[in-house]
Amino acid sequence: MNRANASSGHDDTVDAEFNVFSDAEIVAMETALAAARQGVRGANPLVGAVIIDADGTVLAIGHHRGAGTPHAEADVINRLLGTGVKRDLSAATIVVTLEPCNHQGRTGPCTQAILDAGLGNVVYAVDDPHTPAAGGADKLRMEGINVRSGLMARQAQDMNRQWFVAVREGRPFVTARLAQTVDSRIAAADGSSQWITSSQSRQDSHTLRGRVDAIVVGTGTILADNPRLTARAADGTESPHQPLRVVMGMREVDAGAAARHQGGPGFVQLHTHDPAEVLAELHRRGVGHLMIEGGSKINAAFLAAGLVDELIVYLAPTLLGTGMPALNDLGITTLDQAQQWEWDGTTTGPVERLGPDLKLTLMPAKVPAPATPAEGL
Amino acid sequence: MNRANASSGHDDTVDAEFNVFSDAEIVAMETALAAARQGVRGANPLVGAVIIDADGTVLAIGHHRGAGTPHAEADVINRLLGTGVKRDLSAATIVVTLEPCNHQGRTGPCTQAILDAGLGNVVYAVDDPHTPAAGGADKLRMEGINVRSGLMARQAQDMNRQWFVAVREGRPFVTARLAQTVDSRIAAADGSSQWITSSQSRQDSHTLRGRVDAIVVGTGTILADNPRLTARAADGTESPHQPLRVVMGMREVDAGAAARHQGGPGFVQLHTHDPAEVLAELHRRGVGHLMIEGGSKINAAFLAAGLVDELIVYLAPTLLGTGMPALNDLGITTLDQAQQWEWDGTTTGPVERLGPDLKLTLMPAKVPAPATPAEGL
Repeated sequence: MNRANASSGHDDTVDAEFNVFSDAEIVAMETALAAARQGVRGANPLVGAVIIDADGTVLAIGHHRGAGTPHAEADVINRLLGTGVKRDLSAATIVVTLEPCNHQGRTGPCTQAILDAGLGNVVYAVDDPHTPAAGGADKLRMEGINVRSGLMARQAQDMNRQWFVAVREGRPFVTARLAQTVDSRIAAADGSSQWITSSQSRQDSHTLRGRVDAIVVGTGTILADNPRLTARAADGTESPHQPLRVVMGMREVDAGAAARHQGGPGFVQLHTHDPAEVLAELHRRGVGHLMIEGGSKINAAFLAAGLVDELIVYLAPTLLGTGMPALNDLGITTLDQAQQWEWDGTTTGPVERLGPDLKLTLMPAKVPAPATPAEGL
Repeated sequence: MNRANASSGHDDTVDAEFNVFSDAEIVAMETALAAARQGVRGANPLVGAVIIDADGTVLAIGHHRGAGTPHAEADVINRLLGTGVKRDLSAATIVVTLEPCNHQGRTGPCTQAILDAGLGNVVYAVDDPHTPAAGGADKLRMEGINVRSGLMARQAQDMNRQWFVAVREGRPFVTARLAQTVDSRIAAADGSSQWITSSQSRQDSHTLRGRVDAIVVGTGTILADNPRLTARAADGTESPHQPLRVVMGMREVDAGAAARHQGGPGFVQLHTHDPAEVLAELHRRGVGHLMIEGGSKINAAFLAAGLVDELIVYLAPTLLGTGMPALNDLGITTLDQAQQWEWDGTTTGPVERLGPDLKLTLMPAKVPAPATPAEGL
């Protein structure tokens, strides 16, 4: 039975006149959305994909696992076909949560993967707003593929809403990382801070460093800790992928600072206190995912500017009472102005145990839809 | 097969010469310990109990659910016998994590329940140190019951270690409760604090109030919020069990303060800043479980004195940046002195979702065993 999605009970922005989705496609999209949430946030959005045959049987489920790994479409096609297997998929449909990209990035364009697999039908949720990657649907239609879109567009958009914001604003996706006590201290009164959190948390932090394109700290952190700012394994060896090491602030970083003398994509000091300027410059340099590593002033500056898309809190089961707070002034004076977040977390959920610590993951709370104007106005 | 526990691989303080436990008893004690952890902390310890028959078959599993509810022994006997059922249990064994009490409290003595049930054998883990309740084993032996103890004593002791501390120190068991943002603020810069946490968290807090014997706040909280300090249901009706309402501090609480004019066990102001004095006085008044509800100074005073046995943190997914911190000075100046806690939580684990909030439960970390003196000294 085919039915217009508008009548399916799903609350979607669908042009029902042109886009009619089968029950199997609706179920497949729900599966694809769930699969997408198994990924990791960053330069790329969470994307899931499902291939169903003509009678609606699920043939394969795939998802994207973060920048540098296959896109969801390639993942699901690989799972179904392996390497080199041939199969007639002209009557099959790939159901994917984002418009297939038409862009040669670190991986090939998904449009080509779909054409190579011989898939005859594409259903996707939401258009890709990312200029270099957009146009996938048109490309596929030109090649004779049956393409429909808009199924569960709202859910797909919502799942990646901060990624859409970052793309729209032309800036990197920003992850902030706090490593704090239960009472939100990142150093004791005498400045001692090594280590607030467990070795497992610190190793997780290095895993994140190995996933992002750049990390930024303030000059105060450089002066206090002289960090290398590299991604390292537990045994101290450097990870294959290293982030750009960025310091923001006016005080000139010493020529001997450790962060200046590491391998990988290099070191840059940006002489500004303005997070927006940092993001604009890093976007210009091709940074898709930035991680903020503090200290308090840098954390607070990005948060106060509304420029954090993901907040990761390593929470040690300890108390200090006094010492350096994880944050400082966010420009908030009364409770009504409090920043609203919500627990997020994809692969492992919003709370993960890392040795003695908890890892909490948050994203900015959804802004409530504007009130409907009074009738008659 | 009977075997001495010392050879079972369990690391226990057992007098193997006198106390020999069967495999079935060992397994039953493990089950009893797990059942105990389904309870709630407070004036009474966590206790679990299992009844096994002569061939080791488990007949029933029970546990204590908190002050005012049946003890684990009564619970497991009720589960097995219901009301009024007769059954020959002379060859059966009740395996319990704490010495059966010999005390008429809010519930009858467990020794009598065991005798009434006709149980012929008792195995327990650890002696009851609580003077009015102790002596249960002797009483049972006098009545001809076969009583053995010490099986998994270390685990049973460890599970309730803060309760043992409170009993030894002759003071109430103390729960501290923080309701804070991720950055550990309990009010914004202008003092606004209603409400930092969700209605679900606040309701949970009322459930706790309905379980403890007393709650304490500082005079500052009375002045700032004029709270009633009663346990109330979501619809505002008062819970059947109300705590004693305690204010500590020197500033005289106004005659019209709401906390003075509620039902239940009453109101008391203690003119001291010393948590130990508060606990001594409340112990004298028969308070077995005290909850500290702040503000920062009171929280910090009890924590700094090492007089908190359980810490509950309602964590709202919000940020304030500045404002009143949940804690202040704990007398800690450097990271090595940080208070070490560990995630606890019995019924629901250390992390619970309460609407948009997380509820985190902690207990003081186990103090490492003192280093073994060097050989030959």
